[in-house]
Order: sequence, then C-alpha cells, then structure tokens
Amino acid sequence: MSFSKFTMRRIPSSSFTSISHRSISSRASTMRPLTVESLNPSILKVEYAVRGELAIKAEEYRNKLKEPNHGLPFDRVISSNIGNPQQIGLDQRPITFVRQIGALMDYPELEKLAPNAFPKDVIARAQELRSEIGSIGAYSHSQGVPIIRKHVAQFIEQRDGFPSDPNHIFLTAGASAGVSLLISMLISDRKAGILIPIPQYPLYTATIAQYDGTPIPYYLDGTAGWSTSINEIESALEIAYKQGINPRALVVINPGNPTGALLEESIQEELVRLCEEHSLVLLADEVYQNNLHKRSTHPFTSFKKIVSRLKSPIPLISFHSISKGVMGECGRRGGYFECTNFSSDIRALMYKMASVGLCPPLQGQIAVDTLVRPPQEGEESYQLWKSETDTIHQALAERTHVMAERLNKLPGISCVDSPGALYLFPQISLSDKAIEAAEKAGKQPDTFYALALLDKTGICVVPGSGFGQRQGHWHYRLTCLCPGVDEYVGKLEKFHTEWIKQYGK
Amino acid sequence: MSFSKFTMRRIPSSSFTSISHRSISSRASTMRPLTVESLNPSILKVEYAVRGELAIKAEEYRNKLKEPNHGLPFDRVISSNIGNPQQIGLDQRPITFVRQIGALMDYPELEKLAPNAFPKDVIARAQELRSEIGSIGAYSHSQGVPIIRKHVAQFIEQRDGFPSDPNHIFLTAGASAGVSLLISMLISDRKAGILIPIPQYPLYTATIAQYDGTPIPYYLDGTAGWSTSINEIESALEIAYKQGINPRALVVINPGNPTGALLEESIQEELVRLCEEHSLVLLADEVYQNNLHKRSTHPFTSFKKIVSRLKSPIPLISFHSISKGVMGECGRRGGYFECTNFSSDIRALMYKMASVGLCPPLQGQIAVDTLVRPPQEGEESYQLWKSETDTIHQALAERTHVMAERLNKLPGISCVDSPGALYLFPQISLSDKAIEAAEKAGKQPDTFYALALLDKTGICVVPGSGFGQRQGHWHYRLTCLCPGVDEYVGKLEKFHTEWIKQYGK
Repeated sequence: MSFSKFTMRRIPSSSFTSISHRSISSRASTMRPLTVESLNPSILKVEYAVRGELAIKAEEYRNKLKEPNHGLPFDRVISSNIGNPQQIGLDQRPITFVRQIGALMDYPELEKLAPNAFPKDVIARAQELRSEIGSIGAYSHSQGVPIIRKHVAQFIEQRDGFPSDPNHIFLTAGASAGVSLLISMLISDRKAGILIPIPQYPLYTATIAQYDGTPIPYYLDGTAGWSTSINEIESALEIAYKQGINPRALVVINPGNPTGALLEESIQEELVRLCEEHSLVLLADEVYQNNLHKRSTHPFTSFKKIVSRLKSPIPLISFHSISKGVMGECGRRGGYFECTNFSSDIRALMYKMASVGLCPPLQGQIAVDTLVRPPQEGEESYQLWKSETDTIHQALAERTHVMAERLNKLPGISCVDSPGALYLFPQISLSDKAIEAAEKAGKQPDTFYALALLDKTGICVVPGSGFGQRQGHWHYRLTCLCPGVDEYVGKLEKFHTEWIKQYGK
Repeated sequence: MSFSKFTMRRIPSSSFTSISHRSISSRASTMRPLTVESLNPSILKVEYAVRGELAIKAEEYRNKLKEPNHGLPFDRVISSNIGNPQQIGLDQRPITFVRQIGALMDYPELEKLAPNAFPKDVIARAQELRSEIGSIGAYSHSQGVPIIRKHVAQFIEQRDGFPSDPNHIFLTAGASAGVSLLISMLISDRKAGILIPIPQYPLYTATIAQYDGTPIPYYLDGTAGWSTSINEIESALEIAYKQGINPRALVVINPGNPTGALLEESIQEELVRLCEEHSLVLLADEVYQNNLHKRSTHPFTSFKKIVSRLKSPIPLISFHSISKGVMGECGRRGGYFECTNFSSDIRALMYKMASVGLCPPLQGQIAVDTLVRPPQEGEESYQLWKSETDTIHQALAERTHVMAERLNKLPGISCVDSPGALYLFPQISLSDKAIEAAEKAGKQPDTFYALALLDKTGICVVPGSGFGQRQGHWHYRLTCLCPGVDEYVGKLEKFHTEWIKQYGK
C-alpha cells in the first residue's frame, strides 16, 4: 500500500455535498447484515482443536459444577487438553525465583518496604535489569530488550558451543507469535508449501490456513516411537512438486508435540541436508527442549548446533518459550526465536513486522531472562530453585512413565512412553460399531470417543484428528501434568473398559 | 485447509527410498538463497513510520552518546516519536495501585512476607482476582479472564448508561492486537476497502497492507481543528465504488491520533447513519478516551453510547487500552475491544482466532482490571491514586497547550492546540529550496526536516508522511510527554529558526 496513493488523490469536489444527513438516515433500512460468508475465507478454514469443541464443552461443565444439583457423574473437570502447568487443579507451582524478579520489576519500592522478603541475588538481578530497562510499563525495543537478547545469546552459546548474535534474537509473546510471524512471511502465495509433521501441534496448520498457504504433511512413524523418516519427507516433497506446490519451509518439532519423541543427531543432520537440497527454511520448534524424561538415552541437541557444526548455509529459525519446561509461565506470554543464516534485509523485515505490534510483553521478556539465566550455584536463590525445578522434572517423568505403562495394559490402546515434552498420544483401536455410532452422531470417531470420555469422567483430552493422523488410525492427546495419577488414570481405565463393553474391541 | 487432505493422502510407497543421504548432501551446493523478493509481497508493502527510519537513527545516536567523545551536538536523545509515557528520560511514573496489584499477583507470598507494604484494599483486590484466576502463570480463557471481562462490562455500563455483555468483550495484548484481528477478518479479498482517516495512526495502513486490502482514505480538516466531514467520507466512498472497491469498515480514531481532535456527538450520529447506509462495520479506536485536556468544551462520548441511543444495528467494535490514558502501561500489553451488534457465529470466529494465540498476557489483563476498577473514594488507596492521576492529567494538559502556543509563534508553523490524546501535529511550510534539497537527498520533504531536527537536537519526531497528509502539505507528530518544556521547545524553536535562515520560509 503506497502512501502516494493518498497524497496524489484529488481532494473531493463539492459535488457530493448534496447528500444530507436526512437522506442518509432514511436509507438505514437498506443495511446489509454482516455475515460469516462475507469475511476473510482463510479465517474460516482455520482449525485449532486444542481449544475447540472439547475445551468449550469442558468449560460449560466447569460452570455447571458450581450449581448445587449439577447432576454430572463427576465432581471436577480435568483439563488434559492443553499444556498449561499452572492451571487451577494442577499442582505445579511457579518457580519462586521467577516470581520474585517479576514482583520487584513491577514494584521496585519493595526493595525498601520489604528488604528481607527477597534474596540478595534476586535484588541484584532486578536492579541490573531495571538499570537497562527502566520501567516495565514502557515499550521496549520491538525486537526485545537488548540486554535480555544478549543473555539469550549467551545461553545459546553455552548450550551449543557455537557463537550466537543478540541481533539475531527476537523476543516474542510466546513461541506462537514467532511461528505466526515467520509463516506469514514465508507464504508468498497459495502455492507456497510448508512441510509439517503429522501428528503436529495445530498452531502450524492453523497459521498456514490463516495465511492461505499449503501444508505439506509428512507422517511420523507411531510404530517406531514416532520417528522421523527422510524418505517419508522426500516422498511428501515429490507429491508436492507434482501438484505444483513450491516448498518453502520444513517444520520440525523436537521434542515432539504431541508425540514427545526426540530426534537423533544423525537424523537432524540428514534433515539439514534435505533443507539444503530443497532450499527450505528450517523452522525448529524446540519449546520442550527442557522437558526430557530420559536424558541419558534421549538427549536433546539443538538444530542450531547441528547447522553450526555442519557449517550449513540453510536459513534456520529456532523457537523457545517460557510456557513449557519446568517454568510453565504460559500466562506471561514470553519466548524468543533465533535466526541463523538470514540476511540483514530479511531481519529488517522481521523487525518492521514486530514493530507494528510494538513489543513483546515486558513481564514475558523478564521471565525469558530468568529462563536463560537461572540462579548459579553459590547464589542465595540456588538451592530453592534447584529443589523446585528437580521436583517438577521428576514428577513429570514419573507420571509420564506410569501413565504410559497403565494405558498400554488396556485392550486396544497402544501408547509410546514419551521421552520428552508434556504429553502422551495413545492410539486407540475403534470397532466398526463405534465408528458407525460416531457417524450417526456426525462426529469423527476419535472426537466421539473423547466427547464420551469428557461426558463420563470430566477428563478433557484432544482427539487425534486435531493433530492429524494416518487414515483409519485414531488417537488422543492428554497431558502428563495432572496430580493423583491413580485417580486420573483410574478414570481413564474405567471409562475405556466400559467403552469396550458397549462397542467391542 | 481441510484436514481430510492429510488423512486421505496415500501413504508414500518405498519407490523414493533410493534417495540416500550422500546423494542429498552432494546437491547442497545447488541451494537457492532466501531472498526478500521470494517472501510474502504484502509484508513488503507494510509501512510503520512510528518505529521506522527516524526511530532507528535515534537508537543509533542513543548508543553513540555512551561513547566518551561522541561528537554529537546534543547530550541526550528525546524520543517524541512514540506515545510511551514511562520510557527512560520522561517523568511519568507508574500508578502505584497498578504496580502493587501486579506485584501481589506475581508473588502472593508477599501478603505474609510484607503485610505492611500494601494497603488493605490492594490485598483484598489481589485476593479476589487470585480466587478467580489462580496463578497468572497459567493460560486464561482465550477471550480473557471472565471476571475481568465482567468488570470491563460494568465500566462500560457506568460510562454510557447502556447495557454491556461480558461475552461481547475480548481482552487483547494492547488495542493493536484487536485492530489486527478485526482487519484480518474483514478483508475478504483485495477489493475489500477500509475507510481510514488521514492523518491516521499507521497501524491501520500497515495492517491493511499486511492483509492485502485497500485503504480508502478520507481527509480530516486541519484548518478546522482536524474535524471530520461526512461529505468528505461520502466522496471517498464514491471514488472507491467507481474503482470497484467494496467498502467493509470505517475506522474512526476519537480522540484523534495524531490530531488530538474530539468528535461532537452530532458528527458521531451522522457517522453511525453513514455506516448504516453503506453497511459498514464501525471500528472505533477510543484508546485516548481518558486523555482529555479540555473536558468542559471537548468531552468524550463513546460510539457505543451513540449506537445504543440511536438503537442502530451497525456492527461496532470499540477499542480501549492500558497503554495510554494516565496509566501508560504500554509494556504490559493490555487492552480490550467490545463487539456490538455482532452475531454469535462471528464472535465464535473471533474466539477461534484468539485461541490460536492462546490468550492475552495475564499481567496486561490484570492491569485492564485496575483501569476499569480504580480505587473508590473511602478506600485506602484512593488518595494516592487520585493525586497521581490528577498530576499526570494536569501536566499533560499544560504541556500540550504551552507547546502548541510556542510552536504557533514560529514562522511557517501552524499547530492545532490538541484538546485530547498525547500529541501535537504541527503543519510546517517548506520552501522550494528545502523541497529541492530533500529531493536531492532522496527524502520526502517532511522526513528531510525531521532528520535534520534529529541530527541537530536529538529530538526524534515522526514525519507527517508516516500518517498521511494532503498533497503539498507537510507535518510532523511529536508527543507532549517530555519534561522540561522550556528546554525541549527551546531546541525546536532554535532549530526551526536556523532552518528558516538556511532554506527560507
């Protein structure tokens, strides 16, 4: 949209001044109502199951439970549909260090009013941040506070052993905002294709739909721990080329969501080579890099490290977030992405688009700083931070394993014991009888199962169709965040057993 | 993008497995670099001057000033380019009440650790919010915390005397996020037109460009206090219709940005009638509704009140924010919009799109609650809140008036004494000599002036071309937030006098 268009336009002549107020209002009755059909068709295509039909029904149940005689067969709704560790009903508490910094940034007078309420290292950290930022009520640089970007770059260098440039870091309102920005930039037209894993986190299909691009699905192998196959991606590319699709980017989620799978370095190297061959931007969603349940056998290696080690020229975007890991600060909306092998003019475009949204939330940016600069051994906050984070890591790993074990004992359910992330993605075999019943109800079979689970137990999961799955396969995603595994899995077991009674295996 | 597309696709045969890692890497050299030209062309068209060339150069100067021998003719950069009240160098302090609530939400233990650090009403308020929200580290409802939306609706009812429904309120990450959502929904194709005032806040042209719609500019009258003319809008519509443009919405900014003008109710009624006649959605940007410098002669009336009083059926979106007013909490990213006369299915679409972004920042949502529920007379926090907010209102009104008065005394500068918002938008007459010099430098004349101002004084303003202006007219926007008006305006006067010496009137 060029500005000259405005300044060039002739100033209106007085020839229209005849239209009077009266004549306008008299035509009010001719007004056409605003309809869904008249809106941006790309918006209509967007699907986001994590907060879709199931979540909305769960919300209704939650409200109904407040009524004295609600008549529901459960006394609480368990939201296993979303990785939201600090939500009411779960037992993951915020990391004290993060909240102390947040409170001191919000209300610096507390240093004087409550000098003993904060450890010395917290006070020093908050002072350091304030000396750079000033008030967190002010807009920051659109790319994020410079000193925080510097700390992010230092964190990446320590993690990978390769250089990182603060000017290549963009702080964002959660990783989602960065994903949306990158996809909106890469989709040049309807033929622009983005390779996405199936199953995937639906943010990707939703954003590709919003910007009217074409998803190029590649399937992960549920029979082999949800592994990623180069051949599968190659064949997806071949099909895309035949359809005249122009592949622009490869999305990899590592650790996987919803699968929890971790990539081996050899596969990561092959993926980088594949991006070289097909001139693809690699979008590496690494928001679960700190959710590792089997670190010895399933470690995490960043794509930044692989690309640096291979000296590959591929453009890489690496996403990270404060919402997951053990911090779980979803509500603050904080995260970042790092650009590798991007030209300065493309980064300038990213800055321009970031600046239209002004800046990421400062409380989210502050939390990113605590994510990449946790308390160090010897500092006053270290012991508490260590015990709090260890407890969360351990609880998550144990729950994940126990839940997978018990689900796998149920007839017709097979479930990969996720080595990472926050979820399980069990496959459920559904009988023809169940599928017919689903069709009668006008639902996808897995949605039909998930709705029945919610109606009977109050447990809200997300049907596999929300993430994508092979034809004729059915899954659901549930989080491993819920306390009281016995009660929780007990309900799942009881429900599934009754389901089998009703519909057969 | 339909999901069946995935599930239906045939699982790839093994015919591609012949492509080996080696054969891939050997083709690495064939990789095409990622170029700007290959990206989404709509993104390239986006312009956002508020954080453009001038702001970037100001940032460079700010860094250069840290060097001992910087050799610059000024010792500090004054950022008058953006309404960012709490930025370093300005003297607007945060409202204590807002920050106390924020700190208690972040670190509830402070209630016990520092019981005397907080007034009783603040503690009660935080407890009430926490009982509904739980941890602010959790995602909230995508539309915003229900109880906060309820309080917003109560605020609107008290302001206007007409009912408001919490389910029609969407909390957002600043008003910008809401504007972007609505414009992305309304632009159904390239022929979809959005009426925008000229001058306008460039968020509108930037977002229309991003979603590839067509701006329909209507000019405000700088000779009559930047008034809005129905005839001018009618004529803009006639021209749009002739060009085959399909007008979808009318953007009105009241109080105006950058103009500071306030609409009279009679004009607001005519604008509503005009929307009825042309079946337009009215997008009412009312983020400056609390920045009124002449309340007796220039009061604010919301479009919600006008539409309700007229019982008009027009779809209306009203935007508000915590970033402006006297709160100035830009960095928290908080705001809301209210939908009036929107069908439930269109609101469901808004919810779906909001849910892809998960939720607005909780610390922004909390601040919205303090915006719509300030301390009441008799509550412990009231006196301090009153004196803090009165001081800011008064300082802003005085600065605005004094700055306008002094600028108007300068040859070739005429400036409306803004009755509202945070800005002045002086018109500057530029000589042929100055315009030639600008052309030589490859700059718009007003940008050339603003760059010279920054180079000589360190004052960063935004050229009028960033907002739009009549052909051959030149302006700049500066904020009225800077302390030390004498020094500040003194620098502007000295620069302009030297400019006249060099280039003539």
